Amino acid sequence: MRIDISPSIHLGGEETILCRQQTTNPDITLYSSWFCPFAQRVWAYLEELVERDIIQYQWIEINPYETRSDGGCTKQPLSIDAKRQQYPDFVDVSPRGLVPAINHDGFGVNDSMVICEYLSDVFEPSRQRTDDGRNHGILQPWNVQERTKVRIFWEHISSQVIPCFYRLLMTADQAGREDAHVKLLAGLRYANNFMLSISSSGFFLGEGRYSLADLSLAPWWFRFLCVLGPYRNFQVPNTEEYARLHLWWQAVSSFLREKR
Amino acid sequence: MRIDISPSIHLGGEETILCRQQTTNPDITLYSSWFCPFAQRVWAYLEELVERDIIQYQWIEINPYETRSDGGCTKQPLSIDAKRQQYPDFVDVSPRGLVPAINHDGFGVNDSMVICEYLSDVFEPSRQRTDDGRNHGILQPWNVQERTKVRIFWEHISSQVIPCFYRLLMTADQAGREDAHVKLLAGLRYANNFMLSISSSGFFLGEGRYSLADLSLAPWWFRFLCVLGPYRNFQVPNTEEYARLHLWWQAVSSFLREKR
Repeated sequence: MRIDISPSIHLGGEETILCRQQTTNPDITLYSSWFCPFAQRVWAYLEELVERDIIQYQWIEINPYETRSDGGCTKQPLSIDAKRQQYPDFVDVSPRGLVPAINHDGFGVNDSMVICEYLSDVFEPSRQRTDDGRNHGILQPWNVQERTKVRIFWEHISSQVIPCFYRLLMTADQAGREDAHVKLLAGLRYANNFMLSISSSGFFLGEGRYSLADLSLAPWWFRFLCVLGPYRNFQVPNTEEYARLHLWWQAVSSFLREKR
Repeated sequence: MRIDISPSIHLGGEETILCRQQTTNPDITLYSSWFCPFAQRVWAYLEELVERDIIQYQWIEINPYETRSDGGCTKQPLSIDAKRQQYPDFVDVSPRGLVPAINHDGFGVNDSMVICEYLSDVFEPSRQRTDDGRNHGILQPWNVQERTKVRIFWEHISSQVIPCFYRLLMTADQAGREDAHVKLLAGLRYANNFMLSISSSGFFLGEGRYSLADLSLAPWWFRFLCVLGPYRNFQVPNTEEYARLHLWWQAVSSFLREKR
């Protein structure tokens, strides 16, 4: 399948996708759609595991939309029955037909957070024998309190930031958009203060400590810049209330850019 | 504080609440509202830990509504500032003023799933040394695949069942209610088939294996019976498509009834 990748994306980039589509004898199969921010969370985790020679994975691109008779793309979602016919192995591991999903040695997992917890349980098992706070795991901290803070942050982004992002983007009426705009900023201020209570600069957990918390927000922050800005005139204000988040994005975006 | 508990609730009951409000020198403080199904998930977990003499906890009742001048209840939510004034220790650990939240040795956690993961990490640590599938942990299985299935089920209930419950209850227009009704049943059919793929009777994980998956749904199923039935004429049909869920509720409700 030829995939149409534009605009280019920071979290790995087109070449990585094309390369991972060629993987033979993968340990893990990732079912993804190149544009899906939820899938990018898992993708970025898998890339960390590849970088450490822990796994190889294969990317299977899922086009969730119907194809025009001339081969072009539509925005008409495929029914679950059509997905099952077109991608039976995918629907086996993701019965609602949603990306991301993985198949690891015949075991299927779906939902971005559940997949990340699974990858952590399987590929960061040494954290289960050490909990002294000095060793950091790969993307999930070994220390129980730090791990819990990562989960609280992830939950906050999922419940208070992402729904507002989509409402702001999709709502037709102006009043609905203004309400979503206000609530999105409120969710980000909360995230800013929470992050500040953990660390004053760098990643969520601080300098050099890239974690699942960073993955929870990064794909959407990128879309604040390239989608919400141009289409909804949205920007995260350059004020004190959001200063920690801007520092965070500097750290995350330069980290991810180096990996392209 | 006198709390008004009616109708009586299955997940522990009024006497348990009143008893836990009296705990001195607790290991954990639980901030809860007696009627909140999210809080009941955590409450039920804490009760399991008490039953095994692992912890003692204190229940702090939070009334999220404004009080009338005659002392009666309103349905007007307190602002976060009013909550901070009235319940400063609570807002310290739950900055958005939502129950459930806990304080464990000065460490605050909020969100029902994150709290359950935390309790599992702290009080079921032996699972971290054994993963042979024979030992079951307390409410979170030791086996990584089983634990992942519990998380997938929890995520499904949280994203596909609970929002439909509230839409059916709160939406004023008939068309909206019918749509919510259809989607709630679709979410339950999916839950039925998922549970059936794990076990054919008893709890989600099968006979004698009460887990976090059961806690994810039980507080809402109880409300299907005592709220959605009377107010929205809703019932889970007695057909093959929901048969596994009915068996599940038999197991869960008789288990919880024995604990009253």
